[in-house]
Amino acid sequence: MIKIAVMGYGTIGSGVVEVLETNRDSIAKRVGEEVEVKYVLDLRDFPGDPIEKKIVHDYKDITADEEVKIVVETMGGVEPAFTFVKAMLEAGKSVTTSNKALVAEKGAELLAVAKEKNVNFMFEASVGGGIPIIRSINECLTADKIEEITGILNGTTNYMLTRMANEGLEFADVLKDAQDKGYAEKDPTADVEGFDACRKIAILTSLVAGKQVDFEKIHTEGITKISAVDFKYAKAMGRSIKLLATSRQADGTYSALVAPHLLSPEHPLYSVNDVFNAVFVHGNVLGDAMFYGSGAGKLPTASAVVADVVEMAKHLDQNIPVEWSKEELPLADYKKNEKRFFVRTEADEAAVKAAFGEVELVHADGISGEMGFVTGNMTEAAYEEKAAKLGKVLQMIRLA
Amino acid sequence: MIKIAVMGYGTIGSGVVEVLETNRDSIAKRVGEEVEVKYVLDLRDFPGDPIEKKIVHDYKDITADEEVKIVVETMGGVEPAFTFVKAMLEAGKSVTTSNKALVAEKGAELLAVAKEKNVNFMFEASVGGGIPIIRSINECLTADKIEEITGILNGTTNYMLTRMANEGLEFADVLKDAQDKGYAEKDPTADVEGFDACRKIAILTSLVAGKQVDFEKIHTEGITKISAVDFKYAKAMGRSIKLLATSRQADGTYSALVAPHLLSPEHPLYSVNDVFNAVFVHGNVLGDAMFYGSGAGKLPTASAVVADVVEMAKHLDQNIPVEWSKEELPLADYKKNEKRFFVRTEADEAAVKAAFGEVELVHADGISGEMGFVTGNMTEAAYEEKAAKLGKVLQMIRLA
Repeated sequence: MIKIAVMGYGTIGSGVVEVLETNRDSIAKRVGEEVEVKYVLDLRDFPGDPIEKKIVHDYKDITADEEVKIVVETMGGVEPAFTFVKAMLEAGKSVTTSNKALVAEKGAELLAVAKEKNVNFMFEASVGGGIPIIRSINECLTADKIEEITGILNGTTNYMLTRMANEGLEFADVLKDAQDKGYAEKDPTADVEGFDACRKIAILTSLVAGKQVDFEKIHTEGITKISAVDFKYAKAMGRSIKLLATSRQADGTYSALVAPHLLSPEHPLYSVNDVFNAVFVHGNVLGDAMFYGSGAGKLPTASAVVADVVEMAKHLDQNIPVEWSKEELPLADYKKNEKRFFVRTEADEAAVKAAFGEVELVHADGISGEMGFVTGNMTEAAYEEKAAKLGKVLQMIRLA
Repeated sequence: MIKIAVMGYGTIGSGVVEVLETNRDSIAKRVGEEVEVKYVLDLRDFPGDPIEKKIVHDYKDITADEEVKIVVETMGGVEPAFTFVKAMLEAGKSVTTSNKALVAEKGAELLAVAKEKNVNFMFEASVGGGIPIIRSINECLTADKIEEITGILNGTTNYMLTRMANEGLEFADVLKDAQDKGYAEKDPTADVEGFDACRKIAILTSLVAGKQVDFEKIHTEGITKISAVDFKYAKAMGRSIKLLATSRQADGTYSALVAPHLLSPEHPLYSVNDVFNAVFVHGNVLGDAMFYGSGAGKLPTASAVVADVVEMAKHLDQNIPVEWSKEELPLADYKKNEKRFFVRTEADEAAVKAAFGEVELVHADGISGEMGFVTGNMTEAAYEEKAAKLGKVLQMIRLA
């Protein structure tokens, strides 16, 4: 019998308890012995809940109990999660977390503590919910140099963009509905401004590069400026609009970006809709691969947490090395990256040609007083210069 | 320095040598030391090839060399691959293979030998080429009970179906072109009759169930009867035609089937085209997930083989348990499964209604002398009974 503790009995934490119960037998078979929750750490009591008697309010009750070998952290936020997780690792317990804020900021440090204590720190659920993308990078695609990772990593914004595409709705209306349905939080900033996706691509890039990516240095644009008019143009182009988080490596130099993109039907992420997440990976020998699944939600995320518990239970007192040092990974200026840009402007065609040269005009039904066009291939820096020259730019969305 | 041997210097074997060379540094970093090919077993000599001096013709030269810790088998076919692989395992060497015929038939037996000798037998490249589906089942989706696996597991037939869909070509013409391009073998039976996909779904199902699936008991239909006319109907329905290999589990009972299906645009495998493979997985807590990538080809397949080499190099003298016993998994009769059927018949509408009741008629451009319709939901057995009553059936393709 392996005893574990769960810190944080919210959506994910209670999901972990549920998954361990639902699949008790198959998990025991995988691990080789039963897995049992001994403590649940939460500020609240849960009278009447089956875990009522397992509730503790002080994390030191867990660090002090040598019988507990594995701890699940599902509280969210950097503090006090960091203090608690570090204390657990230092007490010789393996820890898995679903907390991308913690991992993006403190991942390298916590991995180092785990290594020193010969235990494990895992975080499969911190990116892509139930999609096993972390384990794929660390343990599956190990023969490759990964040259690109591009993901739809935020289910809330993908749900919103899907509804805008299908129903012609405006951002504000969809946001309100998403909040009513519980898909978006009361303060939706982290999702809609792209901060959540930014932390996730920072984690993936850190794992690929083996060095620490400072997520604050990733240029990040959210979806708050995407409108129903943009989707009319997207439809005219036969493209979908998705919030992509992407990082690329060429000759050892990495660059990263989070921004809405217009995807052609040939793009592997084109038809990833609703709350689903997907991650596209290009390896130098593997070629293209894509991983798709539920990016959020109680049970899919708990499934990823419990998969970590299973792996840690099979590797008690044996650190599985993960390359991710504290050394900062320098990111190249994203403005040097070349791509094509879709632009909406109030300027006239002559002004567009004067600024951008030959462009592809895009005609969308029922739009007047403006025009849309797609530029040729150019760097972000060149685009900015030409757009400044043009003026009267209403919108710019990158093509992918 | 870890010394390995490669058995079979054909497409995949030479790809393995190439990947180990191309990514020498990153692989050494992952493993913790360099990986070097000491022997290449082949019947042929390769004068002028960099591996010329490593060629041996007798597998016992490898079994006898204690320095060799890991062996790659890329010869194909059950014998002599089985004899060689078993001898390597018995000599205390870990083995990885890309050989689905070997794994489907002898997987359980070779895993048992590996366990007994405290080494590893891995076969990531035997299913889905570069897609890490085996490791996902064994190590990633461990919190779940997997209730469905459905895959496009054969790149050759998917390439052929894609060309038929896009260009309105007939099977025979596309096959000839695929053979000319090297995508299909001179004797294409294993691919076009579905036997290759059958072995692959047998392997995946064995891993999910932990018991041996006898692939000869899986009902298997290939694509040889799919015609340009079928694609006209598919187009009229807005569906794609794919060769699906599928297995389902309900209440511990498994069923499996390999057959062409008509996929709706909502199906996650709808737009998997050309030589790509993809595997859809439904877990009881994970929900839906999908893995997509190059299912064949020299380097993607070699990437998967080398990923096994990396994992085995990190686990020398440590068996990683895989649940797959020799006990046979009983498969339920696929005729009990319910679905909808697309049917082409020379009978008239009255006869169709008399046999099938209410159906959806499908009208395709430029087709005469026959009619197409989609049945309601029914078991395969019920379909067969009604189809026999109707007679004059030209074609039946299942819906998915």
